[in-house]
Amino acid sequence: MVLLVQFSTLKNIIPMFPTPELIEAAHRRIRPYIHCTPLMTSRAINEMVDADLVFKCENFQKTGAFKFRGASNAVFSLTENDMSHGVATHSSGNHAAALALAASLRGITAYIVMPSNASKVKVAAVEHYKGIITFCEPTLQSREDTLAKVLLQTNATEIHPYNNYRIIAGQATAAKELIRDGGTFDVIMVPVGGGGLLSGTALSTNYFSPSTRVIAAEPLLADDAYQSFYQKRFIPSVNPNTIADGLRTSLGTLTFPIIQKHVHQIVRTSEAGIVQAMRIIWERMKILAEPSSAVTLAALFEDTFKHKGLRIGIILSGGNVDLDELPFRR
Amino acid sequence: MVLLVQFSTLKNIIPMFPTPELIEAAHRRIRPYIHCTPLMTSRAINEMVDADLVFKCENFQKTGAFKFRGASNAVFSLTENDMSHGVATHSSGNHAAALALAASLRGITAYIVMPSNASKVKVAAVEHYKGIITFCEPTLQSREDTLAKVLLQTNATEIHPYNNYRIIAGQATAAKELIRDGGTFDVIMVPVGGGGLLSGTALSTNYFSPSTRVIAAEPLLADDAYQSFYQKRFIPSVNPNTIADGLRTSLGTLTFPIIQKHVHQIVRTSEAGIVQAMRIIWERMKILAEPSSAVTLAALFEDTFKHKGLRIGIILSGGNVDLDELPFRR
Repeated sequence: MVLLVQFSTLKNIIPMFPTPELIEAAHRRIRPYIHCTPLMTSRAINEMVDADLVFKCENFQKTGAFKFRGASNAVFSLTENDMSHGVATHSSGNHAAALALAASLRGITAYIVMPSNASKVKVAAVEHYKGIITFCEPTLQSREDTLAKVLLQTNATEIHPYNNYRIIAGQATAAKELIRDGGTFDVIMVPVGGGGLLSGTALSTNYFSPSTRVIAAEPLLADDAYQSFYQKRFIPSVNPNTIADGLRTSLGTLTFPIIQKHVHQIVRTSEAGIVQAMRIIWERMKILAEPSSAVTLAALFEDTFKHKGLRIGIILSGGNVDLDELPFRR
Repeated sequence: MVLLVQFSTLKNIIPMFPTPELIEAAHRRIRPYIHCTPLMTSRAINEMVDADLVFKCENFQKTGAFKFRGASNAVFSLTENDMSHGVATHSSGNHAAALALAASLRGITAYIVMPSNASKVKVAAVEHYKGIITFCEPTLQSREDTLAKVLLQTNATEIHPYNNYRIIAGQATAAKELIRDGGTFDVIMVPVGGGGLLSGTALSTNYFSPSTRVIAAEPLLADDAYQSFYQKRFIPSVNPNTIADGLRTSLGTLTFPIIQKHVHQIVRTSEAGIVQAMRIIWERMKILAEPSSAVTLAALFEDTFKHKGLRIGIILSGGNVDLDELPFRR
């Protein structure tokens, strides 16, 4: 009995590699909190790309992005002891709001370090979910230094946006639902930034639909994952200037090995292609998808791999856009 | 036998008042062609208005608006003989595309008279569905004269956008689905323009959920339905200048009496309120709703009737917007 408790404590301190059982457990853990998001199809878009597409709408997920899956798995995995001082992260994007909501649902504090140039919409979302924001200079160095200070002051538990097995296990539940609800796919596509969604998707696909290929899409202007994947060594993102703001981060030490092992292909897209694909999703499907979410469809329009006639599941990763800053201008 | 055929022919020439049986029949008739659109809820919006809202998402309907229900009912009700010369209408908006698609699905021609200033997006939609467009001057007189000429030349059957019992019966199927799928409502809300959706909704609600009140919302700048309803006589819309372009039309001789009898209340909203409500639908629900669809939520934000604590079904009428002409500017 004592041994079991110790083992369980150890698991909470050092999260374990996401096995099928741990992804199942993550799904059970977060199910009361997440939306099981719907699948959508569009005959018009199918005709345009000559393939059979099924979109998993994580833009309808709580906080407007898949990030809430990982954040809630991480937060609800914490022991009473670990959680007592709250959680902390640095993020300018969707992870910040997701962690703030997950923490608020568990009744603990989320300390969020945000760069001073973070968008007003993103700051407002974190505030809405009662996250405590510390602003810093908009550099990685300042973000990390400020977070270190916050961690020291608060003794909170750091929840990294993607380089964390519990985050990966949480993100893996999106592809798990897609496979459960959507039937058999030839290919599952997701965008790649830090690789949390991609590594989780690759694991779930490998476990639950092993004959399906996993193909990631990345902006050409932030192609660190592409470079790392094909050169088989970690190559960081340097001043990425893509409109797909969720995809500017570099891969992590935990996500890269999973991607190397279980992803079949990474393809790249132009900026104009991303905006065009985003526009087509809005116009034809009547839903908001953020630029990072449109990279996958852009890769189909730009014919980056042989996709004709295939049945393709696409995870639309999020729908958080600033309506005052849309790229649709004549 | 001969009598039966003659009666059936007569029914096709003079469509009959939409009874519960005829609305059921319309639903069966169009079911193979329409989307049974989903219901959506938003906890954030519920908190804002202190009510329990259920949105019926006709923005996800084929051609992006509820109009396809009425158009397909009208087109698929035609006898072989009536349909042989095609169908015709004048429209600058959603009815044009809806009729073009419905006609194309039945393999007949749709002749659409459009004003020369119709939006490019709307013209492109009609062309996409193989409608044959005749452009005219942007006045009601020119639209009617041009349509009369087209009808004379083609011998096509005119399908009016709302003043037609088959159109009303088709639009009535949206509220019918909302009531079937959404449970019991205190109130059902729809926008009012020509009154096709409103009269259909009022009939379905009266037939299938008689304890539910029907409340219509209308822009203050195009309040002809409000004026007609409360003054109990037909008052046309004069130069309405609202952003809700689908609601600029006047009531019809068939829609007005139904509205007078079965609608409980008509409320009015400001233009700023419409844009704000539209923005909140986009941001919180991650879906595109056109200005005409946002009038109902605007009426709740502007507290136009006692709605607190009520369970309210709202038909989001459409999602067709020109992304180059959005009203969201700082």
